[in-house]
Amino acid sequence: MSDTWSLVEPAFSVNTARAYEGLFTQGSGYLQIRGSLEEHLSDCPQDVTYTRMPTNVTSEKFPESKAKWGTYIPGLFGKHPFLCWEMLNLPSFIGLRPIVDGEALDMEHSRVDGYTRTLDLRTATLRRTVTWQTRSGAAIAVTFERFVSAHHPGVCVQRMTLACVQEQAVTVQASLDTDVRTNGYDHFTAVTLQAAGEDGITCHLETDGGDTVQMLTRVCAPSASWRYEAGARAAQRVAELRIPAGGTLIVEKRTAVATSRDLQPSDPAAVLAGIATSRYEDLHAEHAAMWAARWESADVQIEGDEASQRAMRCSLYHLLRAHVPGDSRVAIDAKGYAGDAYWGHFFWDTEIYLLPFFLYTDPERARTLVDFRVQALPEAKQIAARFGYDGARYPWQSDHAGRECCLLWQYSDHEVHVTADVAYGLVHFAQATDDPRYLFGPAAHVLVETARYWMQRIDWVPGQPHPSLLGVMGPDEYSPISHNNSYTNRLVRFALAKASEVGWQVGASAEECAAFALTGAALPTPRAQEGKLVLQCEGFDALAEPNFADMWRDRTKTFAAQVSQERLYRTKCLKQADVLMLMMLFPQEFTDAEVRCAWEYYLPYTTHDSSLSAGAHAVIACRLGLLDDAWAFWLHSTGLDLDVTHGGAAEGIHIASCGVNWQIAIYGFAGMASAMAAEHLTLRPQLPAQWSRLSFPILWKGCPVHIDISQEACTVTNRGEQELSVQVDEQHVVIPAGETVSMVMPVMAHVL
Amino acid sequence: MSDTWSLVEPAFSVNTARAYEGLFTQGSGYLQIRGSLEEHLSDCPQDVTYTRMPTNVTSEKFPESKAKWGTYIPGLFGKHPFLCWEMLNLPSFIGLRPIVDGEALDMEHSRVDGYTRTLDLRTATLRRTVTWQTRSGAAIAVTFERFVSAHHPGVCVQRMTLACVQEQAVTVQASLDTDVRTNGYDHFTAVTLQAAGEDGITCHLETDGGDTVQMLTRVCAPSASWRYEAGARAAQRVAELRIPAGGTLIVEKRTAVATSRDLQPSDPAAVLAGIATSRYEDLHAEHAAMWAARWESADVQIEGDEASQRAMRCSLYHLLRAHVPGDSRVAIDAKGYAGDAYWGHFFWDTEIYLLPFFLYTDPERARTLVDFRVQALPEAKQIAARFGYDGARYPWQSDHAGRECCLLWQYSDHEVHVTADVAYGLVHFAQATDDPRYLFGPAAHVLVETARYWMQRIDWVPGQPHPSLLGVMGPDEYSPISHNNSYTNRLVRFALAKASEVGWQVGASAEECAAFALTGAALPTPRAQEGKLVLQCEGFDALAEPNFADMWRDRTKTFAAQVSQERLYRTKCLKQADVLMLMMLFPQEFTDAEVRCAWEYYLPYTTHDSSLSAGAHAVIACRLGLLDDAWAFWLHSTGLDLDVTHGGAAEGIHIASCGVNWQIAIYGFAGMASAMAAEHLTLRPQLPAQWSRLSFPILWKGCPVHIDISQEACTVTNRGEQELSVQVDEQHVVIPAGETVSMVMPVMAHVL
Repeated sequence: MSDTWSLVEPAFSVNTARAYEGLFTQGSGYLQIRGSLEEHLSDCPQDVTYTRMPTNVTSEKFPESKAKWGTYIPGLFGKHPFLCWEMLNLPSFIGLRPIVDGEALDMEHSRVDGYTRTLDLRTATLRRTVTWQTRSGAAIAVTFERFVSAHHPGVCVQRMTLACVQEQAVTVQASLDTDVRTNGYDHFTAVTLQAAGEDGITCHLETDGGDTVQMLTRVCAPSASWRYEAGARAAQRVAELRIPAGGTLIVEKRTAVATSRDLQPSDPAAVLAGIATSRYEDLHAEHAAMWAARWESADVQIEGDEASQRAMRCSLYHLLRAHVPGDSRVAIDAKGYAGDAYWGHFFWDTEIYLLPFFLYTDPERARTLVDFRVQALPEAKQIAARFGYDGARYPWQSDHAGRECCLLWQYSDHEVHVTADVAYGLVHFAQATDDPRYLFGPAAHVLVETARYWMQRIDWVPGQPHPSLLGVMGPDEYSPISHNNSYTNRLVRFALAKASEVGWQVGASAEECAAFALTGAALPTPRAQEGKLVLQCEGFDALAEPNFADMWRDRTKTFAAQVSQERLYRTKCLKQADVLMLMMLFPQEFTDAEVRCAWEYYLPYTTHDSSLSAGAHAVIACRLGLLDDAWAFWLHSTGLDLDVTHGGAAEGIHIASCGVNWQIAIYGFAGMASAMAAEHLTLRPQLPAQWSRLSFPILWKGCPVHIDISQEACTVTNRGEQELSVQVDEQHVVIPAGETVSMVMPVMAHVL
Repeated sequence: MSDTWSLVEPAFSVNTARAYEGLFTQGSGYLQIRGSLEEHLSDCPQDVTYTRMPTNVTSEKFPESKAKWGTYIPGLFGKHPFLCWEMLNLPSFIGLRPIVDGEALDMEHSRVDGYTRTLDLRTATLRRTVTWQTRSGAAIAVTFERFVSAHHPGVCVQRMTLACVQEQAVTVQASLDTDVRTNGYDHFTAVTLQAAGEDGITCHLETDGGDTVQMLTRVCAPSASWRYEAGARAAQRVAELRIPAGGTLIVEKRTAVATSRDLQPSDPAAVLAGIATSRYEDLHAEHAAMWAARWESADVQIEGDEASQRAMRCSLYHLLRAHVPGDSRVAIDAKGYAGDAYWGHFFWDTEIYLLPFFLYTDPERARTLVDFRVQALPEAKQIAARFGYDGARYPWQSDHAGRECCLLWQYSDHEVHVTADVAYGLVHFAQATDDPRYLFGPAAHVLVETARYWMQRIDWVPGQPHPSLLGVMGPDEYSPISHNNSYTNRLVRFALAKASEVGWQVGASAEECAAFALTGAALPTPRAQEGKLVLQCEGFDALAEPNFADMWRDRTKTFAAQVSQERLYRTKCLKQADVLMLMMLFPQEFTDAEVRCAWEYYLPYTTHDSSLSAGAHAVIACRLGLLDDAWAFWLHSTGLDLDVTHGGAAEGIHIASCGVNWQIAIYGFAGMASAMAAEHLTLRPQLPAQWSRLSFPILWKGCPVHIDISQEACTVTNRGEQELSVQVDEQHVVIPAGETVSMVMPVMAHVL
């Protein structure tokens, strides 16, 4: 498998069908579809109603099913009776099924040779080829292709090619199925299906979120006559066709989708009419051109290890696919619009894990993510008010309207760092884009309102010399109600300091700004071991020892799956990096010795039960020169979606990990300091032994830069129009506009 | 209102209908019915289906309804789809409605004069008299009477008497209605209603708990012809009758109930046939005789304040009513079988709040309560195993089968003191009944198995000189995951010590018993203020100050109703007594100065949001000689069910408070030390100024004693057959069998 641009499913198995379905999700941002099979599987109903109850997703068992359809339009949410607002799984329009001599193509039950399904990452195109040995004796080469057009974001284009040596009669069904559920619940309040012309099906849908959805699908084949068959919730066009002897039968299906929520309203009929004369190849070419431009500014090239290259591109593909260009009414949900599991909700992932990739490759896309929080400020103020505070408090788990949708109080009530993470994200945007107008404009309101919340959330306990943030959950969710969590305190200190800087711009008094600064500065970082060890929180060292040897016997499963939550909550066991996350975000504030001390103390306690743990560990390992560890964490993190035999992306893409994987490469192996940690572009490259080259484009404060790292040298090209100050390890150079400088890599003493 | 044996509803109001409905609950232990109106109210359907979600009951808003029927048989549970197992609300069989000239009697809409409804506590009889001025001009005196027979525990006997000056035609409907819900959910899997003979209705019911219920109701009036009318879920007998001029029409209704779960199976038809020749008066007399015997051994007489006397008897009535004699497969649920609110579940209330009254007045009844835990031991072992521990761990919220039914993890996971409370209850039973066979027999298994759980639940944190109980919630539920809660640690210390004593009896090795003793003894009691202050838990003094002045403006509502749970959980605010509970259970271990220090420290932080708070405060106030405080807490605690204008018993009886009220009188004002705290009967009486006399019977280690306290003297009568050692304040006397000794009360120095 030498193509580093392709993800390949080499054979079909029902055991991995859901994992590939998630992994092969395609999307234009606006419209997302899971990689389900066009002809579907038998005995796999998608209308199963069940009651999903609020629980921890990470320990949840999802209903068993061979396949799980998913069609999503970011921002289309409905109200679930128990689960708050959730992103709707929309009707599936990709159905396309050949039937030969009464036998429907079925990957599970038909005799199929030469199965190959490939997601071409470069063009975001899914292609499947099989040879179908029908029970009646025919051998038919079947190819399915499809893409969600980057050029027409509401359009999905499909093609099925059938070839056979002899002439062969074939029945083709092209369906649109609205009988789907979101987490077992039916959100559609009205469904109207109708025949459209001679070859189409229209669907008009009303949702319990108050939105309407219009779908039009048209199917096309040479001299076909398509009859219309409809049930209450599904419809199909059916034609009796012939594969010419030694030739091919090509069936195309095009679907356009529009909703009442669209920024640019459109009529699906007009959209499809507008591309009616375009051939499949034409539509694909304009789509592929847009993807080529995206890759141009985003691709991270890795040489020496094809698996790494492929994994890196898989992450970047999903980041680019999942982001909705130009729409700041949504961010990127936890499953990257590739599953229902996290209800389409938005987490701190946005600011901490996803934003950097966009910030340094495509600030326009980054802008929608930070603007999403700015536009959610009014709702954040209401959340603060509901908790009894002034100011603004962001939800742990946000829907499209910025509402708190987390149903488990330990997170919604106590994982307050998200509000400081939001502030960090806004400032990061302003820093990385060198845009003080953003800081003093849109960001300032958020900074000041969230600071007002913090001022009331912070307690001054009589008899203590400092203020405290009591009863918080840090990034490590296994310490639920802790006091003075170091990560949270530092982020809040940051947020208050920034609010103090910008407050005057939005009417905060000098006294209030001074109070922000003084209170924030006084928030403590608890320490132990004579100050050498940054404690995750007060009293962390007085928690129980975990005894992993006895209790975590099956390391293929999470620790949490093998012990009770009660035990987690009283034990020194970390779900993910917490102090190390702090040190990753504020690297300049901690000495190598402190980082090393934290690494050595926490690593034995860290379960990495969270998919977000590996990334911070990889980056910190690079800082400490622990390249073997960094490599192991890189493999762990990039394997999450790709490891189809362990579930992989079955419930959706680990999209935050995709962002993390970019960070491992850029912050870790290239050692780039973020614009929050460095004024000038600063690199500290250390390639894994397996890699011979790592090269990538970066936008550094508006200046396009290309960085090319080998084991021997680091080459920086200034593609901008002004000179660029660059530091590589201890070497500092100023690179004129348009010039390239190559620096020999030093012997990395800290590795030895 | 001079009758201290009666609770009176002086006028009907829909605003207080539910409160009286709960307050007037009647029961035989086996069969319980809320005090609903026989003719019901209009526009008040009882078949409303809704989804009750898991939440904190104390902050829950229940569906609005003028009335809430409740018919319960302890032990009949069903499986709710979200709420675990819950006690079933069974069909209502009390329906009895007169209709005159087309107008049905209706307390809300009919013109009614002279409404009086009285619950006679002495005979557990509910009686209502009204004069009904019909729209057609008749004036009809209507009297409803009913009781659930103590003599025939599955039988309810009703009588309706109608009197009129002129002859008056009247239609009477006698119904049985199965169209009821439990918390909005229908648990009946099959319902069969049939006419029985000329005047009866039978109901055969199957529940989703796998039980069957048989009901037979018969109605009777002179020369009546009862037609049968039935719908799918309800049936009635209807007759056209006449009230003779100047005379009375008497309609009787008798219902017998039996279930597949009965200890003594019976046939309702045979039961009613067996009493067919008994007059209402006969049945009532045998019922009243049994209640008289109950009161003989339990009544607490208070002179000088009728309200106190009435309130005391109200509590004792409900305790006697709610207990199921001879059936250790159930205990007493949190709402005293008078409402659905707590799902019929059993809490630590059983051991700590309810048990003492039964222990010192009727040990046979107490025995069923402790045996309930003994028989639940196998399930408790399964609960421990599910949490990953050896031994046995009792559920926070138990159903009849001993299963954990609490849906909120902060309680089910962390409020572990219940397991030690169970041990305390078992030992209390053995001590109070002077029955070491119980201790070394049934109790020993529980003590050793729960000790094995504690040995694994306790952590030895490296670097600390003592073991710790980490991550627990004490009785104060506003500190959710605290370390070394003093109450819990002391109870566990107690449980481990007792397990160590009895372990040899059930096969625990000497080494294991020694480990129990040593580990328990080493569990710390955290302290502050140079040791003077017992801390509720480690770090309690570092929690935020509550700022009640700003945040708890409406003192008619709980503090929790006015702030977020998040704030509660990081603040020095107590839901109920915690350290004071500890000092109440182990009074001899704390000096008056320590108790005083705790009182002064915690009282300003205590919200008394829990109905269980006032009792411990009243008892501790008595110890400290703070009689004004004790009086205020007495009024608070006894008012909970009686204050109908603030909801009172609308959702059920605060049955634990009923037990607490007995404790306030006996442990508080009479100053009796429990058998856990004193070897000999010990009294330290201090009557409130409002009371001239407090007298009550007690069984002290098998010896019947009568105690009579006035402001001047304490008179103790030894009704047993052996001499009795008694200490009253500093006076110690030995009272020969059958003798009475009167002691002059000392000047109470500590009051002054």
